[in-house]
Amino acid sequence: MSAPVEPEKIFSSDNIAGASPAVAEAILAASRGAASPYGNDAATARVEARLSEIFEREASVFLVPTGTAANALSLATITPPWGSVLCHPASHIHNDECGAPEFFMHGARLLTVEGEHARISLDALAQRAGAKRGDVHSSQPASVSITQATELGTLYPLADIQRIGALCQARGLRLHMDGARFANALVALGCSPAEMTWKAGVDVLSFGATKNGVLGAEAIVLFDRTLTQELAFRRKRAGHLFSKMRLLAAQMEAYLADDLWLANARNANAMARRLASGLAALPGVQMLGEVEANILFCRLPQEVIAGLLAAGYVFYHDRWAPGVVRLVTSFANTPLDIDAFIATATPLARQAASHPVTA
Amino acid sequence: MSAPVEPEKIFSSDNIAGASPAVAEAILAASRGAASPYGNDAATARVEARLSEIFEREASVFLVPTGTAANALSLATITPPWGSVLCHPASHIHNDECGAPEFFMHGARLLTVEGEHARISLDALAQRAGAKRGDVHSSQPASVSITQATELGTLYPLADIQRIGALCQARGLRLHMDGARFANALVALGCSPAEMTWKAGVDVLSFGATKNGVLGAEAIVLFDRTLTQELAFRRKRAGHLFSKMRLLAAQMEAYLADDLWLANARNANAMARRLASGLAALPGVQMLGEVEANILFCRLPQEVIAGLLAAGYVFYHDRWAPGVVRLVTSFANTPLDIDAFIATATPLARQAASHPVTA
Amino acid sequence: MSAPVEPEKIFSSDNIAGASPAVAEAILAASRGAASPYGNDAATARVEARLSEIFEREASVFLVPTGTAANALSLATITPPWGSVLCHPASHIHNDECGAPEFFMHGARLLTVEGEHARISLDALAQRAGAKRGDVHSSQPASVSITQATELGTLYPLADIQRIGALCQARGLRLHMDGARFANALVALGCSPAEMTWKAGVDVLSFGATKNGVLGAEAIVLFDRTLTQELAFRRKRAGHLFSKMRLLAAQMEAYLADDLWLANARNANAMARRLASGLAALPGVQMLGEVEANILFCRLPQEVIAGLLAAGYVFYHDRWAPGVVRLVTSFANTPLDIDAFIATATPLARQAASHPVTA
Amino acid sequence: MSAPVEPEKIFSSDNIAGASPAVAEAILAASRGAASPYGNDAATARVEARLSEIFEREASVFLVPTGTAANALSLATITPPWGSVLCHPASHIHNDECGAPEFFMHGARLLTVEGEHARISLDALAQRAGAKRGDVHSSQPASVSITQATELGTLYPLADIQRIGALCQARGLRLHMDGARFANALVALGCSPAEMTWKAGVDVLSFGATKNGVLGAEAIVLFDRTLTQELAFRRKRAGHLFSKMRLLAAQMEAYLADDLWLANARNANAMARRLASGLAALPGVQMLGEVEANILFCRLPQEVIAGLLAAGYVFYHDRWAPGVVRLVTSFANTPLDIDAFIATATPLARQAASHPVTA
Repeated sequence: MSAPVEPEKIFSSDNIAGASPAVAEAILAASRGAASPYGNDAATARVEARLSEIFEREASVFLVPTGTAANALSLATITPPWGSVLCHPASHIHNDECGAPEFFMHGARLLTVEGEHARISLDALAQRAGAKRGDVHSSQPASVSITQATELGTLYPLADIQRIGALCQARGLRLHMDGARFANALVALGCSPAEMTWKAGVDVLSFGATKNGVLGAEAIVLFDRTLTQELAFRRKRAGHLFSKMRLLAAQMEAYLADDLWLANARNANAMARRLASGLAALPGVQMLGEVEANILFCRLPQEVIAGLLAAGYVFYHDRWAPGVVRLVTSFANTPLDIDAFIATATPLARQAASHPVTA
Repeated sequence: MSAPVEPEKIFSSDNIAGASPAVAEAILAASRGAASPYGNDAATARVEARLSEIFEREASVFLVPTGTAANALSLATITPPWGSVLCHPASHIHNDECGAPEFFMHGARLLTVEGEHARISLDALAQRAGAKRGDVHSSQPASVSITQATELGTLYPLADIQRIGALCQARGLRLHMDGARFANALVALGCSPAEMTWKAGVDVLSFGATKNGVLGAEAIVLFDRTLTQELAFRRKRAGHLFSKMRLLAAQMEAYLADDLWLANARNANAMARRLASGLAALPGVQMLGEVEANILFCRLPQEVIAGLLAAGYVFYHDRWAPGVVRLVTSFANTPLDIDAFIATATPLARQAASHPVTA
Repeated sequence: MSAPVEPEKIFSSDNIAGASPAVAEAILAASRGAASPYGNDAATARVEARLSEIFEREASVFLVPTGTAANALSLATITPPWGSVLCHPASHIHNDECGAPEFFMHGARLLTVEGEHARISLDALAQRAGAKRGDVHSSQPASVSITQATELGTLYPLADIQRIGALCQARGLRLHMDGARFANALVALGCSPAEMTWKAGVDVLSFGATKNGVLGAEAIVLFDRTLTQELAFRRKRAGHLFSKMRLLAAQMEAYLADDLWLANARNANAMARRLASGLAALPGVQMLGEVEANILFCRLPQEVIAGLLAAGYVFYHDRWAPGVVRLVTSFANTPLDIDAFIATATPLARQAASHPVTA
Repeated sequence: MSAPVEPEKIFSSDNIAGASPAVAEAILAASRGAASPYGNDAATARVEARLSEIFEREASVFLVPTGTAANALSLATITPPWGSVLCHPASHIHNDECGAPEFFMHGARLLTVEGEHARISLDALAQRAGAKRGDVHSSQPASVSITQATELGTLYPLADIQRIGALCQARGLRLHMDGARFANALVALGCSPAEMTWKAGVDVLSFGATKNGVLGAEAIVLFDRTLTQELAFRRKRAGHLFSKMRLLAAQMEAYLADDLWLANARNANAMARRLASGLAALPGVQMLGEVEANILFCRLPQEVIAGLLAAGYVFYHDRWAPGVVRLVTSFANTPLDIDAFIATATPLARQAASHPVTA
């Protein structure tokens, strides 16, 4: 349950690391003195202004403490109870939120749309989006949710988001982006936040921060401001309106200041690439897919897996297929951490290669 | 929206103050290094153990960020969708949560039960609890929610809670306590946490901390542990399961350490009494009710109200009746703050008294 | 549970009587042969056309089997989950539907507005409608529901409905009318269906038939046709879309044909008046309020109540106050039934009057 | 919308036909006189007794007007909001109820389990039932729903139901049977109602009648009577408690009397077999699967399809695959209807066979 953990040996998720020092210091500073409650404080106003600046558009911003809250509130605002959300089978909303979207949407349904590498296929989406429209016996496609970067660490190229956005526009569907790893995707693509979102047709964004240097704060960024009042009531009603909003605002403000969010994401991505190139050089290791953000998949010999675990490393393995390992890097990783991992893996891989087993 | 606020002049609510230094320091400390996610960290385990110790009983503890979340989750766990919660018309769940209980309970209803000073009357409760039982056309009384200290700052004496608990037991109703100001009530009554809760029949407690020195953390304390698993799913599904639970756990741990929670509450209560005795000595001021915790009601001449507002003081007035003022003190107030308030009010009251108006 | 009942002795409710012969014959006729399912049959189309004709306006019509379904679906279509419905404390939706409105509205709340004789007071409504608008901590007034004739058998005069409609218009509230006894009210007021509804500002009507000669069929009449598609999905999703819709359509068609609905209502009302004048002539009987539709309230000596019950009569008594009796007449009552009731009551009343007790 | 339909030419669904004469006559008879409301009438009591007799067990019976209501209410009673229902992708609850189960279950999820011929595979079910148990991030498998006869007209053999029942028992899952075509399955299997349900582990049954000779009436048969009270409140709250319950009870009573329900099902099944043997003899016709109940699938040349449509026949085609046709027979079909269909198809098939096209 609560064994002592060695931070530098954990590659299971980017939610294991703590916070960037600037973020923690900001909470400390914000904890002093009085502030207007329920988001009527100065820090919250600055965060909204700053995000509008970053996204080059006046947006409505709602701070919430978890990604699940951000996703579920966003989807509820764009999907009626008799609607459905089109999403990938690998999506977090579909797999890891215990039905939060269905709870917030009052029973609307998630419909899965296949596609390679955790990305919705445009063809499949077009087909699903058109099925049973107007048929009173069927939930009606009302929105699309895509994850950028995806749950497998892959990316939608800008052109794909634009195509999905155009399809949504044409079909009267709203487009939600789960940006739990938004910054990782952004720095990888090298485009602007506006390009990756509303310019491509995104109506509402779950702007993640918790996985990238913050303790617990996410922003719902609403590009369609007609939904602002509705979202305000939904947030309150879900118990997600903080009286001392500064706890969330301070984190987000520090996260956005001095491009900390971008620097953190660049580091996480760089660490994943460093890890990938180290692993790729080892005998018996098979890299799976490109490393586009901060998640890496590879296939390792079982002795290597066992040896890494014995050395105290923590990561998911054998969950997708035998020998398949997922490694997630974070803002907190250093080149030393990565090199130590490779240094541990190297003799294990060599030994495994020296007496190969028939799988 | 976000005018600069002078903390020492704010008496509108105890959610305006920031955090006790120890709490903020604890967040800072907790922000470093890695920790198991989703409440499987050491700090969360320590909080659960400590609360079980404080309540002299093994309890299930669920950390959540807001009082609304604590209340709504608690009520949903003890009230089926076709049930009703019996509560006072002045209760926070009834007035100030935008239907969060109804959302979490999937449409169950709040039924109000009158009583003086924001306390449910036992007779009225007995009558309501017995009405339309088994009648398929009516929502069925399933639970009772009481607030301790109440929204008016009054207290249920221990014997009253015991009587309500016994009634609930006899009628098959579950008993919830909204303890947003639990510590203020506890130190005022001078009883043990166990006596004020499960020994009196409380099944589930919203253990507040945010109004008393914490930035954003509350604990649902479940004395009936058979509901533990259900509450776990409900919390996740509501977006209230933090990946970095340490953000909540660190606050709660520091709050409970060295009896900070009790010291903070004692200070808030003492400041309210000091304020009351200062005001009572002024001409034309009418005190309304006892000051039992950290909330004070009085009737002030309109010139006094106007003068205090002009001097920068912030408080609610003329909301309950003309000239009626509510003043809330907090853990952060000092005797100097109180004395300054009285010093400002004194000449205003004297002047008002010198040329009385006929109301 | 199921003692044999003598129809002519039942005055407890107008839902005890069966169906007008023409309605039952229409079901029989409709039971033969094939028909398109799910409301795509000719009879359903004819009902919609006929109701549009009766209401002098193209309306969307949704047949459902119960008044609770009609009310709950109507309210859900005009009230968001964070909204509230303003209604009278005596209303059926508030007292007798086991939370169906809250279920269909996903937790929106019913807020009661007082007023004499089960009619909402315009002043109280104006006050409630304006309270806490825009306050994120409060459910937002979204709709008003009035019952015509009311649950006490009283009527809103046309001018009152118009004033309520104008207030709703001014405040951005939608107006629902629960017309479980719509026909009884209509013939009593002597106005047109259009005047009593959309011309006065009603957006959606639960057009009752079950209490007035039909076995189980009600129509939701939607004057605001922009809500048509939403209501279609809501009805299906609630299990209220019949595959063999003809079962409902046949009843409603026969009910509307040859003004059967008006004739039935006129009879029920006339029987209530006949009963009232018979009772008023008896010693010791106190009539309570006017008899405006088909419900009558009076105060009877306890011996009279006991004697009537002993003679096999069925009615509610001593529920509102000691000695207070409610008598409901229906389309099925004949003058003979009424005269028999009076003939039974007369000697009882005389005997009671001959040896008066001190109450 | 409402073109005149020739009943004997409709093979699109068994919900197109009207009612058996005895059922319609029973409504007529029931429409006379008074009866206690809300299911407290004698006819409803007799139906409950009769069904308990038929199922050889005291069961709680809830009459509702539609199959969607029966399914959604049943599932809500055995599945918590954070649970999931395991069902086949072809199931009616998954495809044709516009999210009614999710609405009634307050957001619980349907999880599909594959299997051939619309029957859940036991292996797939075992795998799904065990997945992510206790994982707070995932909806928890809580119940299983099987359809007998299935939506494709296939049957679960008794042994399969028993195996599914045993698995449910072992895993703590509740078992629901959607028996929209229960009678068709029963007479085909030749077992007893008890054997096909509770003796095999079924907890709750949607006992269909509407598709088999009734206008609009279904029964929820609850073998686990501990859920009785909950279901009563759920039914009321969904607007499905009829005041004049006799409308449903009369239909069901007539349906069960003199084994009408079994005779109707035997006829429907026999007509499907007659149709199948007629079609099988035609050139170019490919029968698809066994005809186990009253639904038949085959592949027809496009000219045959076109010719039948031109002759006024109504059926679904080209929905599952090009050339695939579904034909559904009902209680109302006669051998003459079937023979006329074959007589129309025969020359079309011969002509098509004489000049084959390359597909």
